[in-house]
Amino acid sequence: MAGSSSLDALVQALRRLPGVGIKSAQRMAFHLLQHDREGARMLARALAQAADNIKHCELCHTFTESAICSTCLDERRDHSKLCVVETPADQSALERTAAYKGLYFVLMGKLSPLDGIGPKDIGLQKLFARATDGVVQEVILATNFTAEGEATAHVIGEALKSRGLQVTRLARGVPAGSELEYVDLGTIAHALVDRR
Amino acid sequence: MAGSSSLDALVQALRRLPGVGIKSAQRMAFHLLQHDREGARMLARALAQAADNIKHCELCHTFTESAICSTCLDERRDHSKLCVVETPADQSALERTAAYKGLYFVLMGKLSPLDGIGPKDIGLQKLFARATDGVVQEVILATNFTAEGEATAHVIGEALKSRGLQVTRLARGVPAGSELEYVDLGTIAHALVDRR
Repeated sequence: MAGSSSLDALVQALRRLPGVGIKSAQRMAFHLLQHDREGARMLARALAQAADNIKHCELCHTFTESAICSTCLDERRDHSKLCVVETPADQSALERTAAYKGLYFVLMGKLSPLDGIGPKDIGLQKLFARATDGVVQEVILATNFTAEGEATAHVIGEALKSRGLQVTRLARGVPAGSELEYVDLGTIAHALVDRR
Repeated sequence: MAGSSSLDALVQALRRLPGVGIKSAQRMAFHLLQHDREGARMLARALAQAADNIKHCELCHTFTESAICSTCLDERRDHSKLCVVETPADQSALERTAAYKGLYFVLMGKLSPLDGIGPKDIGLQKLFARATDGVVQEVILATNFTAEGEATAHVIGEALKSRGLQVTRLARGVPAGSELEYVDLGTIAHALVDRR
């Protein structure tokens, strides 16, 4: 836009968001300036506060504002179980099921050799140290069921089994509420193999 | 996310952006915190600065940091021509053509009765006062060729013609570089009617 360096700077800054190109950035900037200045100020404060205050939990590596997150500090949880997930969003999905009462370890990524992301980049040493603290008995691998997620689960599983821990993986099978006719064949094949 | 109010606040604030739902907001927040904290701080500064500094040009109503924008102040431009556009993005598109050297009036919206947006909401009185300053001879209507844009152009055109101004509309026709076979029929019909 001609004549406004603040507007140009805002559009450029919005493009740093993932999935936002020049057109979306312009639309966001116009919307905030034209219809929602309070939203713009609120977002500015939230960004600055989050960038300054949020760090990683020393135990589970998730985002938190304290040294150790509230989940890890919760005495009512089962400290003998450790569930390994890729992102805080995955952790949140598991929490919403209310079916798991153990602790978590959040990788904040996954092994992805094609993108140059190896074991060091996702802090596997930290996970191995955490899992071998003597309290953890079972490690549940809940990485995604994608190629990278499966590879990550495999690498972690092998390493932890060699350290004498019980390692399990989330069950693969037919999703709840689905009709077999419309389920993909790979899923049905897995469900057959893992039948119980 | 459990245990971090800064992160929750950031996700909620990101949802104020147009086209951003809960999943995108989470993805944006994780990306900024995990990979681009400097980007988060930069965006925070840009938002605060833009929200505080950007106002509307007193003459053309576009976004600017001064009372009157640099385009309106430019003495080399043809002050007898006034081009009416819906948004600063449209103005920017016209500027990039380098085919227009007159001035602009930016509506910052369009008539849209279904959304309750009438003549007062898009400042048509301000446009009428601007166009009848005695210097402007021709008003070029460059609102979008959508239903709302056409209606807006019609209303403005009728009002300005009754005030004795020359009113023109951007030509409708076949886009540059296109093959007739693949152009929609409405466009070809318009191009036939407006042939020259």
